[in-house]
Amino acid sequence: MALVNEHFLQLPGSYLFSDIARRVRMFEEQHPDIPLIRMGIGDVTLPLPKAVVGAMHLAVDEMSRKASFRGYGPEQGYSFLVETIIENDYRPLGVSLDPDEVFVSDGSKSDTGNIGDILGKDNIVAVTDPVYPVYIDTNVMAGRAGVLTESGIWSNIRYLPCTAENGFIPELPSEPVDIIYLCFPNNPTGTTLTRAELRKWVNFAIDTKALILFDAAYEAYITERDVPHSIYEIRGAKQVAIEFRSFSKTAGFTGTRCAYTVVPKAVCAYTNAGDKVMLNALWNRRQTTKFNGVSYVVQRAAQAVYSEEGIRQVQKMIAYYMQNALLIRKSLLEAGFEVFGGVNAPYIWVRAPKGLTSWKFFDMLLNEAHVVGTPGVGFGPSGEGYLRLTAFGDKKLTQEAMSRITAWKLSSLKSNNP
Amino acid sequence: MALVNEHFLQLPGSYLFSDIARRVRMFEEQHPDIPLIRMGIGDVTLPLPKAVVGAMHLAVDEMSRKASFRGYGPEQGYSFLVETIIENDYRPLGVSLDPDEVFVSDGSKSDTGNIGDILGKDNIVAVTDPVYPVYIDTNVMAGRAGVLTESGIWSNIRYLPCTAENGFIPELPSEPVDIIYLCFPNNPTGTTLTRAELRKWVNFAIDTKALILFDAAYEAYITERDVPHSIYEIRGAKQVAIEFRSFSKTAGFTGTRCAYTVVPKAVCAYTNAGDKVMLNALWNRRQTTKFNGVSYVVQRAAQAVYSEEGIRQVQKMIAYYMQNALLIRKSLLEAGFEVFGGVNAPYIWVRAPKGLTSWKFFDMLLNEAHVVGTPGVGFGPSGEGYLRLTAFGDKKLTQEAMSRITAWKLSSLKSNNP
Repeated sequence: MALVNEHFLQLPGSYLFSDIARRVRMFEEQHPDIPLIRMGIGDVTLPLPKAVVGAMHLAVDEMSRKASFRGYGPEQGYSFLVETIIENDYRPLGVSLDPDEVFVSDGSKSDTGNIGDILGKDNIVAVTDPVYPVYIDTNVMAGRAGVLTESGIWSNIRYLPCTAENGFIPELPSEPVDIIYLCFPNNPTGTTLTRAELRKWVNFAIDTKALILFDAAYEAYITERDVPHSIYEIRGAKQVAIEFRSFSKTAGFTGTRCAYTVVPKAVCAYTNAGDKVMLNALWNRRQTTKFNGVSYVVQRAAQAVYSEEGIRQVQKMIAYYMQNALLIRKSLLEAGFEVFGGVNAPYIWVRAPKGLTSWKFFDMLLNEAHVVGTPGVGFGPSGEGYLRLTAFGDKKLTQEAMSRITAWKLSSLKSNNP
Repeated sequence: MALVNEHFLQLPGSYLFSDIARRVRMFEEQHPDIPLIRMGIGDVTLPLPKAVVGAMHLAVDEMSRKASFRGYGPEQGYSFLVETIIENDYRPLGVSLDPDEVFVSDGSKSDTGNIGDILGKDNIVAVTDPVYPVYIDTNVMAGRAGVLTESGIWSNIRYLPCTAENGFIPELPSEPVDIIYLCFPNNPTGTTLTRAELRKWVNFAIDTKALILFDAAYEAYITERDVPHSIYEIRGAKQVAIEFRSFSKTAGFTGTRCAYTVVPKAVCAYTNAGDKVMLNALWNRRQTTKFNGVSYVVQRAAQAVYSEEGIRQVQKMIAYYMQNALLIRKSLLEAGFEVFGGVNAPYIWVRAPKGLTSWKFFDMLLNEAHVVGTPGVGFGPSGEGYLRLTAFGDKKLTQEAMSRITAWKLSSLKSNNP
């Protein structure tokens, strides 16, 4: 009799985005004449940079001729891409990496999900709260989460609250934990850590032999000098951290699919008997056994992100989104909202006015301002009372959304509700 | 203290292909003037079909304009591709599938590896022997394999021998098993099952509540009428089988990366308490949580495989490889070898003459005929005494390889060794 992995049965449905979709659909059915502006989903809207498009056409043509056709590539990624990544993303930071420490993949969602394959079931996992749901759900699937309590938290997961009260800087865990997910610049709050703050985490991991899974998918949006782009800028991090990077938000690859993960040869985990094991070798074995590499055409696309032209075009794209972020921040602050993030990240985290819940605020924005956000509580208990807006939209629509929210805030002030 | 998944430490190195590479390198260093012909690795060599190339160029252009740009797509694949698959690969067989029973992915290696995520740890796994190593290695990683014994088999895996003695038709297990991997047409033996033989397996699975993981990556190479292209041609299979299909060998996508997996809504596994669970919902949850869909450009490429032009071009490619297979079969039979496969598959499974081991035969072909194959024992104990040749090479090189092997056989007959 074939047995299922019963941990999957513990997962509640992923209600957040289906709930949002249901409410949006209901509104649209009742008000087919009112166009909504969607600022909920973190997906890019600008087309691929011209340099990337050109490289893809060339690569497609290579695949059309027998002499230049490419079959199976290395599961870890072609060296033309791996070396370009090291040269451009790490060398300027003073971080040296060997080519076999970089693993090209189809996405950070895959990698942050699959990394659990190489880790033991009995690890205690810590996450910042609010959090990207994949970190928790994949640990539920692997049997590391314990049981879901009535308050919506998992009994074996350690939640590290990030709220306005602590400036969105998580406190070090009071008890030991084994695996720590850190995502900075953060999704969903849009806030980040300074070098000094990140250093505390690296030192904590070194002291307690914990492993940091560092998601740097938004590093390209950093504007402030004191914010590290890579965890490996911190001394000692190579011993304790795996870093995830993606082209999705950097170069508009959400529909093109390319990312990479850095597993330094120094980073270790342990057997129950306390023996050190090199995670690089385990991840390499995982990837060569369960993955067959990224499409050649897509790897050429990713390489072109680093061409002179590509760098310029990508910077322009990011500047476009960050102008939206600036506009959102400025408009909401002027309208009297409490606003976080949006300086080193394309996400703006808005406090719901007058103690409204996330969902109440969401509903009011939907029904009265005709703007769709994402209720913060959907990302975890500490997200309650917040709402996430994204800066990935069209500039004019973003402006229009801000006019609507400002007008709504003014009228609600007059009516004193809320 | 971060703990590793210690099951990874049980895996021996993947010696097969590195051993082959080492011996080939040694030969080439000693004989830089002798060009080898490589018939070892199952990778295609013909370029992408023109219809596919055209579709990719169009899709790249779509991605270059804001109005037609695509960000995140559905994790399960775009409906334009899913519906095309159902219409072309299943409807003609009399198999009806709903769109949400088909999951597009980046490869069958990923899917046959990741499918274990949704299955319990305590399943007893059966594999045909010889076998594609991924089926075993991924179960080792998941802790289902037990320990590696001295004879090279895993204590908890049930091996179903497929040799010339049983016509490469595995016998039904004598004891119950929970999960059965079947790959037909088979890699590495190139043999397959008739409809009546496959029916026995489906009935066995129905009777014992087992789950069949059916790898049909080579179905496009079937030439005989009585060989099923899909396990769902067998009545009742939708209750007990998941089917894996790939564009890699069908349309030359080994470097382009697209495949799909069919998880019918009827297929179930069970909780320890004996409750039925729909695997479709679990796989959907796995894929939406740990995967972000296949590149839009690649999905358009796969769709073009089914265009009128694409179908014609793909048929021509397959015919080219199958002419190689025919040539290999004919040449080796004429030279006095015992040869299997190559009729419904691009693999030819050659019995080593006069009781040679796989590796001895490999070494003789390498050093004396200057042709590289794959030692059958690398695929499992029942592969001992065989060697795999692939038909994916260039026609002229394949002809030349056959001349060399024939000449070698003749001269070795004269010298009576072997």
